[in-house]
Amino acid sequence: MPKKIRVIQYGLGPLGQKITHFLLERKQLQIVGAVDIDPAKVGMDLGELSGVKKKLGVTVSNNADAVIRGSRPDVVVLTTVSDMKRIAPQIAGILKHKVNVVSTCEELSYPFLTAPAVAGKIDALARKRGVAVLGTGVNPGFLMDYLPLSLTAVCKDVKTVTVWRIQDATPRRIPFQKKIGAGLTVPQFNRKKKEGTLRHVGLTESMHMIASGFGWKLDKTMDLIQPVIATRRVKSKAITAERGMCRGVYQIGRGFMKGREVLTLHFRAALGEKNPHERTLINGKPRIDMMIKGGVHGDIATCAITTNAVFAIMKANPGLRNMADMPAVSFVRAD
Amino acid sequence: MPKKIRVIQYGLGPLGQKITHFLLERKQLQIVGAVDIDPAKVGMDLGELSGVKKKLGVTVSNNADAVIRGSRPDVVVLTTVSDMKRIAPQIAGILKHKVNVVSTCEELSYPFLTAPAVAGKIDALARKRGVAVLGTGVNPGFLMDYLPLSLTAVCKDVKTVTVWRIQDATPRRIPFQKKIGAGLTVPQFNRKKKEGTLRHVGLTESMHMIASGFGWKLDKTMDLIQPVIATRRVKSKAITAERGMCRGVYQIGRGFMKGREVLTLHFRAALGEKNPHERTLINGKPRIDMMIKGGVHGDIATCAITTNAVFAIMKANPGLRNMADMPAVSFVRAD
Repeated sequence: MPKKIRVIQYGLGPLGQKITHFLLERKQLQIVGAVDIDPAKVGMDLGELSGVKKKLGVTVSNNADAVIRGSRPDVVVLTTVSDMKRIAPQIAGILKHKVNVVSTCEELSYPFLTAPAVAGKIDALARKRGVAVLGTGVNPGFLMDYLPLSLTAVCKDVKTVTVWRIQDATPRRIPFQKKIGAGLTVPQFNRKKKEGTLRHVGLTESMHMIASGFGWKLDKTMDLIQPVIATRRVKSKAITAERGMCRGVYQIGRGFMKGREVLTLHFRAALGEKNPHERTLINGKPRIDMMIKGGVHGDIATCAITTNAVFAIMKANPGLRNMADMPAVSFVRAD
Repeated sequence: MPKKIRVIQYGLGPLGQKITHFLLERKQLQIVGAVDIDPAKVGMDLGELSGVKKKLGVTVSNNADAVIRGSRPDVVVLTTVSDMKRIAPQIAGILKHKVNVVSTCEELSYPFLTAPAVAGKIDALARKRGVAVLGTGVNPGFLMDYLPLSLTAVCKDVKTVTVWRIQDATPRRIPFQKKIGAGLTVPQFNRKKKEGTLRHVGLTESMHMIASGFGWKLDKTMDLIQPVIATRRVKSKAITAERGMCRGVYQIGRGFMKGREVLTLHFRAALGEKNPHERTLINGKPRIDMMIKGGVHGDIATCAITTNAVFAIMKANPGLRNMADMPAVSFVRAD
């Protein structure tokens, strides 16, 4: 039997807890450490905390450095924050132990143009240490960037790319429903929008991943946010949006080259959304019109792609990678 | 301006001639040599031969070794034969000059299980010379292997994968129409099938690429061929199939694991085929049902992916690669 891949789960919010379940399903992986800063979680057994219903013999610690030093992991799964500024020191702390990083940090999915200085530092550090760092997830990381980009492999010309991710948020995790503003009044929505706390992070990164793959230089990107208003009462288990309130968010990423709109990403997530689907339309030669009926369940997908990426990162070249410049991430059998 | 990538076009049948046009559209590429063994082509200017309508100053030669030695290429685009046995010595001859290879050879797309000895030799030679070799194309190489495999990145479990490639052969190149048996009587079809000259090459390779990505070990594969019979007269510019004759081929690849059918690839190409499309159905968690409406035009797509792969191979690690273990191939702008 080949040696197991030793993994630390760093970040134990709802997403990190769920990923713990996914990691445990893979017999080729072994969870050797768990990190979170929340005092309420520190000292708990990872199994108890994440609802696995058995003790795993892995105690949650708030001392990442000590956990990594003591457990010799191959990969750290990092599910803490969404922005480069706060994730950079966490990654630096991991890299000094020569350990690979797979993270769900949205801004890390393609930071080369949005945060070039920080990205450059992480890249240099990872190369120096001979390990790889990847930001991934269902979106950004797959549905609105990697997949559209890959589909153009068969194109001799591309004029524009338009992507739709239309989701019914009803079955999604509660933090996600809150993040998209479901149940807020319009003034509440607009206040949160102004604060910057209500938005899907990643449309700009997705546009840069696609454009860079094509060798396109975008001269402008826009990320527009508006509420989706309920025309009748809609509700999930946790949240009710009365008529006239917000049931979700409609966000549009627009990328321009020489004044022409060449990339358009429609992200719409709302309670009671009809006809959820993923669609990519490549206006090129040949024209490609791809649809995934019913869409892809975001929570399962993000946990799955993160887990699957643990295997791929072991084969990646050192440095700060992105989904398009490393071996393909795919399902790896559970046993 | 960055240095141009120097390319040799090796193999100047209909496909190689068409790829020449695609290569010429990319200003970042420079065609520095042309090779074919056909005495009728040797000595011609590549532009004249391929119908570019201008001289390119590149003369077709039957001496691959001399052309490569004299023109210092970065990549050879190899479009000669479909089988490993005949392509291996051609590749070996290229590799000794430390030059990357992108080939449309179907069996080269994933030869690690179908021709392990030859594949191993090519891999060792490429590593020794520090260059990469890739077999690609729309199929095998993309629609029935790489794309389904990539779609599973978001899956926590996969039970079965079923792929449909349903094509209307009417607008395809004439050699393709002939290859699929359009216009033959059923006895003629069966004779050619018996001889092994009438089949789409690649279903087995596609199944192995998917299964290997998953870490699945197939215990049996089947590649079944049957004619598609015309129920009324159908015709293309070049070929007519009367009622009762063959208008194309329906080929099914079936892969089994522990006696259970886990992979099924439906390849159907026929004159007058209604509702052409690409579909991948992943029976897993989540379930993924992907459709490309109208399908992907095979000739354009194969030439495009081969041209786009020239850029990707320059970033690939040395060795015999496949589409899933190197940076993603995508459209690269034409200028």
